[in-house]
Amino acid sequence: MDRGSTVAEALLARRTIHQFDPDRPIEPGSLVRILELATRAPSDFNLQPWRFLVVRDRKDRQKVGRCVLGPAAWAEAPVVVIVLGYLHPHQTHLEAIVDEMVRRGSLHHEAALAVKGRAASTMAREANPESWAGRSCMLAAAWLVLAAEGLGVQSALVERFESAPLRQAFGIPDDHAIGCLVGLGHALETPPFPGRLPLDAVCFSDHFGQPFMPNQI
Amino acid sequence: MDRGSTVAEALLARRTIHQFDPDRPIEPGSLVRILELATRAPSDFNLQPWRFLVVRDRKDRQKVGRCVLGPAAWAEAPVVVIVLGYLHPHQTHLEAIVDEMVRRGSLHHEAALAVKGRAASTMAREANPESWAGRSCMLAAAWLVLAAEGLGVQSALVERFESAPLRQAFGIPDDHAIGCLVGLGHALETPPFPGRLPLDAVCFSDHFGQPFMPNQI
Repeated sequence: MDRGSTVAEALLARRTIHQFDPDRPIEPGSLVRILELATRAPSDFNLQPWRFLVVRDRKDRQKVGRCVLGPAAWAEAPVVVIVLGYLHPHQTHLEAIVDEMVRRGSLHHEAALAVKGRAASTMAREANPESWAGRSCMLAAAWLVLAAEGLGVQSALVERFESAPLRQAFGIPDDHAIGCLVGLGHALETPPFPGRLPLDAVCFSDHFGQPFMPNQI
Repeated sequence: MDRGSTVAEALLARRTIHQFDPDRPIEPGSLVRILELATRAPSDFNLQPWRFLVVRDRKDRQKVGRCVLGPAAWAEAPVVVIVLGYLHPHQTHLEAIVDEMVRRGSLHHEAALAVKGRAASTMAREANPESWAGRSCMLAAAWLVLAAEGLGVQSALVERFESAPLRQAFGIPDDHAIGCLVGLGHALETPPFPGRLPLDAVCFSDHFGQPFMPNQI
């Protein structure tokens, strides 16, 4: 049995796909597996604010494509996921989440009430829930892309789109931030690696601006 | 040779670690490999706005710990990375990035000028660069955490901290958003899985609020 790629292999092989094979769908079992693995992303208080709006109907995918700023051929992917970030999970899901943590031995039952209170009050004081939810659902999008890659499904993560028509077309309410769009499918061709800045251009040691020294501990 | 975990294994095994073994450092070669893999994250126009401020000095890690809202034992991890998002990479790094894309055959040289122009003008019109950079560096943080997990290094991704004292302590300028903190090391103990909401609580099919139907294409 194919065990799937290692993490390093998947991270090195992944490309943002521009053209997907319209004749190669994703098996429903694979799609469920990918979504389940995506929910393994970590989140603040385990609040899991990500929501996955899975778009498979061709007309609906074309609607997504029309909301994209830039080339939209990727929206021909057999599956397009609109990754959302729910702003108020502490108001609706906190009980269920904490109870499950207690049931799994991840939290002592005597601590449950205090954790619920702390999560609720911290979230109520959150200065920018839109930004909180937006950042969190990017983690889930990352998990989604890498879960797919590990199972042999390629992707395109798209960060630039028009929110208002997307909200209207798919009924996305204002209490959900739209984080990004992810096309999933099989690449028609694998684009070349576009390169990255050298490590010393993006890493610092101990203080901002200080050169990165790998060997210094 | 150990090939490392598969992606699915890594996603299932990963936990947010509360206590790291202070006596087990990360090999410098491993740390470099993890950071290099983290830079493989995708970004808008390949602008790579993530920056990794790698904190290894114990006193400096304690400073990070004091800026955290909530338990801070994870900051005893041998390596703490402050993941930043640079707001203006199009003003300083776009030339080098696009030239490298041309050199690697990822972009035709005749298209280079147009791409530079489009990236620069799109970024100049960006309504919320702080949020753009913040979302993007969460992708890099996700890549960082999963690259580490794949190479047998555990992590804690922390989203809640006080920005002002962190900026002051580490000289982080205002044109860099602070996305999150990531502790890297070897777990003293692996916490139990805290559970997740069921898939049908976080997935929709084709329209917001519509139940997720795995088998419907």
